[in-house]
Amino acid sequence: MITDRHPPSAEHEVLALERAALLRWCRGDPSGFLEICDDEVGYFDPFRPARIDGLEALTAYYEALRGTVSAAGWEILEPRVVEIGEAAVLTFCFHSWGASGGSITWNCTEVYRRRSSGWRIAQTHWSFSAPDAEPRATSP
Amino acid sequence: MITDRHPPSAEHEVLALERAALLRWCRGDPSGFLEICDDEVGYFDPFRPARIDGLEALTAYYEALRGTVSAAGWEILEPRVVEIGEAAVLTFCFHSWGASGGSITWNCTEVYRRRSSGWRIAQTHWSFSAPDAEPRATSP
Repeated sequence: MITDRHPPSAEHEVLALERAALLRWCRGDPSGFLEICDDEVGYFDPFRPARIDGLEALTAYYEALRGTVSAAGWEILEPRVVEIGEAAVLTFCFHSWGASGGSITWNCTEVYRRRSSGWRIAQTHWSFSAPDAEPRATSP
Repeated sequence: MITDRHPPSAEHEVLALERAALLRWCRGDPSGFLEICDDEVGYFDPFRPARIDGLEALTAYYEALRGTVSAAGWEILEPRVVEIGEAAVLTFCFHSWGASGGSITWNCTEVYRRRSSGWRIAQTHWSFSAPDAEPRATSP
């Protein structure tokens, strides 16, 4: 019997998009994100001193990382989607680990906007989470 | 002659709200933010292991910080506002320094939503910026 703890119908469309893009990202392929970013996307991560503005600049940054990212496993923790008209604000913590056992947890805010072509990421913010004192529930 | 490099008419309403709330925050008063947060606000910062959900929980967190924050000076760097229907996504870097000269720079994403009572913060994300290799232009 095939079971699926993550039936697509149970989660918001932007969370499904994010999950699919993360799956590719963790295999070294940034195109999953680039394909769903808005032309006017803004981007923060903890390795850059300032925001990246626009898909062209973000593409250059991501392409330099192509093939360098790999995770043995990962999970999305406590995802939440708040719709505001044509925007959907997705927030979650992201926990990933390597083959050698090291792990890291991130805070992520993704603002999606509805375009005629579908949901597109308008703003990405990645940062490190503080150390967790207690284990948390994983995503449903 | 009185000059003003920051005429209110030149900046988006949510940036003016943020600036006013930061002014109070840097004097130890979190009420400036609490007064403009949505009931359903979500909140990330680098000191917490997970997101804070809702104004009640955020109020408890902020009230514990009341009177503890102080900055000798601060500036908003490279602010950007992207409107998406009833949402306005404000991003900026925030640079603050103490009387002893130590300084810190943050990345901030603030998602505002338009309520009948005015703009309210629906999602806040604070994190540390990476060290800056070169000086950047300050906000206009």
